[in-house]
Amino acid sequence: MRNFVYMLEISQRGQAMPVSPFRKLAPYAEAARLAGKKVYPLNIGQPDIQTPPQLLEALRQADIKVLGYSHGAGTESYRRKLAAYYQQAGIPATMDDIIVTTAGSEAILFALLTCLNPGDELVVPEPFYGTYTAFAIAAGVSIVPITARIEDGFALPPLADFERVLTPRTRAILLCNPSNPTGYVYRRDELQALLGLCQQHGLYLLSDEAYREFCYDGATATSALTLPGGEQHVVVLDTISKRYSACGARVGALLTKNQAVYAAAFRFAQMRISPPGLGMLLGEAAAELPPSYFDETKAEYQARRDLTVRRLRAMPGVSCPVPGGAFYVMARLPVDDAEAFGQWLLQEFSYQGQTLMLSPANGFYQTPGLGRQEVRLAYVLNQADLDAALTCLAEALQVYPGRVVPQERVVELEQA
Amino acid sequence: MRNFVYMLEISQRGQAMPVSPFRKLAPYAEAARLAGKKVYPLNIGQPDIQTPPQLLEALRQADIKVLGYSHGAGTESYRRKLAAYYQQAGIPATMDDIIVTTAGSEAILFALLTCLNPGDELVVPEPFYGTYTAFAIAAGVSIVPITARIEDGFALPPLADFERVLTPRTRAILLCNPSNPTGYVYRRDELQALLGLCQQHGLYLLSDEAYREFCYDGATATSALTLPGGEQHVVVLDTISKRYSACGARVGALLTKNQAVYAAAFRFAQMRISPPGLGMLLGEAAAELPPSYFDETKAEYQARRDLTVRRLRAMPGVSCPVPGGAFYVMARLPVDDAEAFGQWLLQEFSYQGQTLMLSPANGFYQTPGLGRQEVRLAYVLNQADLDAALTCLAEALQVYPGRVVPQERVVELEQA
Repeated sequence: MRNFVYMLEISQRGQAMPVSPFRKLAPYAEAARLAGKKVYPLNIGQPDIQTPPQLLEALRQADIKVLGYSHGAGTESYRRKLAAYYQQAGIPATMDDIIVTTAGSEAILFALLTCLNPGDELVVPEPFYGTYTAFAIAAGVSIVPITARIEDGFALPPLADFERVLTPRTRAILLCNPSNPTGYVYRRDELQALLGLCQQHGLYLLSDEAYREFCYDGATATSALTLPGGEQHVVVLDTISKRYSACGARVGALLTKNQAVYAAAFRFAQMRISPPGLGMLLGEAAAELPPSYFDETKAEYQARRDLTVRRLRAMPGVSCPVPGGAFYVMARLPVDDAEAFGQWLLQEFSYQGQTLMLSPANGFYQTPGLGRQEVRLAYVLNQADLDAALTCLAEALQVYPGRVVPQERVVELEQA
Repeated sequence: MRNFVYMLEISQRGQAMPVSPFRKLAPYAEAARLAGKKVYPLNIGQPDIQTPPQLLEALRQADIKVLGYSHGAGTESYRRKLAAYYQQAGIPATMDDIIVTTAGSEAILFALLTCLNPGDELVVPEPFYGTYTAFAIAAGVSIVPITARIEDGFALPPLADFERVLTPRTRAILLCNPSNPTGYVYRRDELQALLGLCQQHGLYLLSDEAYREFCYDGATATSALTLPGGEQHVVVLDTISKRYSACGARVGALLTKNQAVYAAAFRFAQMRISPPGLGMLLGEAAAELPPSYFDETKAEYQARRDLTVRRLRAMPGVSCPVPGGAFYVMARLPVDDAEAFGQWLLQEFSYQGQTLMLSPANGFYQTPGLGRQEVRLAYVLNQADLDAALTCLAEALQVYPGRVVPQERVVELEQA
């Protein structure tokens, strides 16, 4: 029997869990709005593109008597249609390779819980989606960052950089392709080389492909599941959130050809019984959209990207690579500290009653001190608003008290 | 650099993760159906009661342009209505005490991640909801079971039993009230005594109240949040799944007055950005149903419970307590092994072309060997089907080759 009084405490992981990097500036944005400023939200990947009306109509037409549990891996009907979508996209997934998840978030969590033990190491090129840190803490695993450089357009760092950090605890490499936050689209040869490393060292290759459909200039993204020899190593993490502008549906998927991984991930899926049923109905309608659906959306995003890059590069001291995919631009600004600048934009600055909210890049780097002059801009607003937001940024940089002499200009790489 | 080849392995937690206890017999049920038998599913808490049409109508009426992310704790609009529901139920929760979760499952996971460190101990009266085991494995915590006895109607075991197992690693006690799988409704004095223990030893009291609205014979369930002195200790785990027969919506909630717990749980909620948006719309309509909505549902469940208990007790050698709530009955059967019996029912037996699927109770006990003669029956079918299923059970028990002389008959306690 316990003979002492123990105080109520929050768990260590609960204490370590970070405030979402996208939300750090949220209180200042709220205050700015209350003060009457118009705030353009370029901080978060919440597209303004309309959810395809067919999806919502499918929901309205659904004849539901009892909204019951589905199979733990998702309804057979949805998995069948989703498999057809993947096949059409050139990805050899059958319905038996798919576990429908509660958005990409749950796919990430299940993959970490399935493939890594507590204390194991996950290698991730930085800058990376800041929320990976939170999932790693929840799963008790350590992220080992490999720095990609803005000067290189955030291309995959040399393999030697990966080899150098491998330890007996390394279990997996995690990539986001096309990348959030950099927009970089990994080339097939880069992915194949990385898979080679995984084969050599017995590592999983976790591939977050949330932005698959958003590649520009006629390019397409290579799914890790299409790499020869990847069957046992690759776990794809996916979501319909960005693809169909349906972030609130919370429907994603985990895909793998590795049957042991599938079986274990499925047991985690059974734990929460089933994924969201209404979201799956939406997903079914989405999977039936013709591939041409993406043409219009892609053209719009590409126009926004071009606008964003053109305007950024016209600002003295600002530089950025041309992102080949997703809907983000990472830019280096001539400022002392991008987080302080982001806060100043909301607290101190306005131009014609307007300002903008951006994501300081330090939330995407794990190595302390990196990304201090970088920000991520999400081009998720219509072109008029985007243009107005970028005008605010240009005006702000001219008067920001913490302006500094810019570092060497980023070589203006265009992706092949 | 790592100079050895490491094989791909599934994590230890992935290997430890159990197959859902509700699904163990599923392959046999599938085979029985393929063989042309009608199988009554009394194994899983999936109600056949219709989802209130108002909820689905609200969804059809919703004017959604962009199905976007919501606040991490759920939409303000839903949290406000949910708070009103709780107030009406006598539970003093405001919208700032509520984090909307992806069903009760996520509320359980967030509570464990927030309140316990890996290796910490969670005390749970057994038999308990089998899936708690899976969540404990995912969170890396150990469940310490305290056995409740069928002879006592599964009342709360004596406090001394709890005190005996406390160690420096004990962090929380988890209860399901009304209980899945026993149907027992904990009395206020039992809960108050348990809270006293939590206060004395600095423990959290996690209270799973998924079945709150289903109490029979005029009784009501006591929410742990209404216990004086519980503010810092109590975390309520809730869901609309059972309450409104909306298991597929995947909408639940975590409630706490402990601000440190709230803040940490909210950071876990931010990790997955937001709960299901369509489900929350459904939840809003549900929260607006008048309290009288439950009258009809409760009357139906009570009639089913009465039917189930009456029929079970009329079977020679079968005994069961009268459950005061939820929609489950735990019964002791005169069989050698309830799991073998459950499998035999599906593989070997049929009565007029029919048989039934039940949950062997060993999936609800952690202590090895307990519950060997017990099963859980979910009275989630209409009375005609339920009656037919129970006829199958009665016939089966007469011919089951593994029939044994019954143990002492359970005292037929009625709950006060």
